[in-house]
Amino acid sequence: MIEKFELLERKVLRKSNILTYCDDLYRFPDGKEEVYDIMLHNGASAVVPVLEDGRILMVHQYRPAVERVTTEIPAGKRDEGEAFDTAAARELEEETGYRAGRLEHLITINTAIAYCSEKIEVYAAFDLQKHEQHLDDDEYVEFEAYDIEDLVNMIYEGKIMDSKTIASLMAYYNKYRLT
Amino acid sequence: MIEKFELLERKVLRKSNILTYCDDLYRFPDGKEEVYDIMLHNGASAVVPVLEDGRILMVHQYRPAVERVTTEIPAGKRDEGEAFDTAAARELEEETGYRAGRLEHLITINTAIAYCSEKIEVYAAFDLQKHEQHLDDDEYVEFEAYDIEDLVNMIYEGKIMDSKTIASLMAYYNKYRLT
Repeated sequence: MIEKFELLERKVLRKSNILTYCDDLYRFPDGKEEVYDIMLHNGASAVVPVLEDGRILMVHQYRPAVERVTTEIPAGKRDEGEAFDTAAARELEEETGYRAGRLEHLITINTAIAYCSEKIEVYAAFDLQKHEQHLDDDEYVEFEAYDIEDLVNMIYEGKIMDSKTIASLMAYYNKYRLT
Repeated sequence: MIEKFELLERKVLRKSNILTYCDDLYRFPDGKEEVYDIMLHNGASAVVPVLEDGRILMVHQYRPAVERVTTEIPAGKRDEGEAFDTAAARELEEETGYRAGRLEHLITINTAIAYCSEKIEVYAAFDLQKHEQHLDDDEYVEFEAYDIEDLVNMIYEGKIMDSKTIASLMAYYNKYRLT
């Protein structure tokens, strides 16, 4: 039986607009103590946007942390107090210009469970209607529609490496396309 | 066409044994500049360990960042200079006591692409032989075998939320069990 560790002390080292970096001192079940790097994150939402013909809308953007242009599902952090499904619909419209007629919850993800509290709620979006893309000032994003089978191949070929995107596309594929 | 951002200046705020926390100043294609939180990470390996009867070995451990006991595939960070497949085999043996006769590369994952460079190489492990579990001093881990169909259900039920685990199990399921 695995027991909880006891949090003895939290030292906040840095608070940015997305992450709060803490040194947390924990006591293990056997009494030993150790400091963990813990990042606190307010949560995010992501969407698998499904066009009427079954193709999936994906976004391309430059990601400094991995130094390359990626292919991802639309996603973004939740505003303070915002509901996860509201954030999902908002991010979809901001990044692609499409409004979702219907969102179905797909899965819940912790991105980097070893050191970050970030949780992403992922939805499949249907009945999409085209409006206008309106990106934030610091967003440089293009979108493109793909067949789900091609996206699955891109995962195995290493062309899609983003964990939320792999988890979400495979969960969508298994739930909606193979049954 | 999405362009690369130019890294103008890196300020290292903190270096722990798993993460290097940087303030990175980037210039966007339109000339605007902005500071990003970037975590540098040395990379990790993970394994989908497949028993002879098809069941998957999973580990349970307490994760302070998400404040709960999780069900995950065996994984861990790479030692300095260590090959990813060596790290995968080592972590599997440390956490479960099983040695892999054969590792097949499954997928490559970036866990938190918005702010962390972490890359995980994921392998499916076959021809497992039982030896002894030998955990690190700060590891409190138990393992348990599951049917893959039960694990897939646990993903949709929100009982498995770890992104590397969801991505890896679904990728394994799609590649080895459905074809």
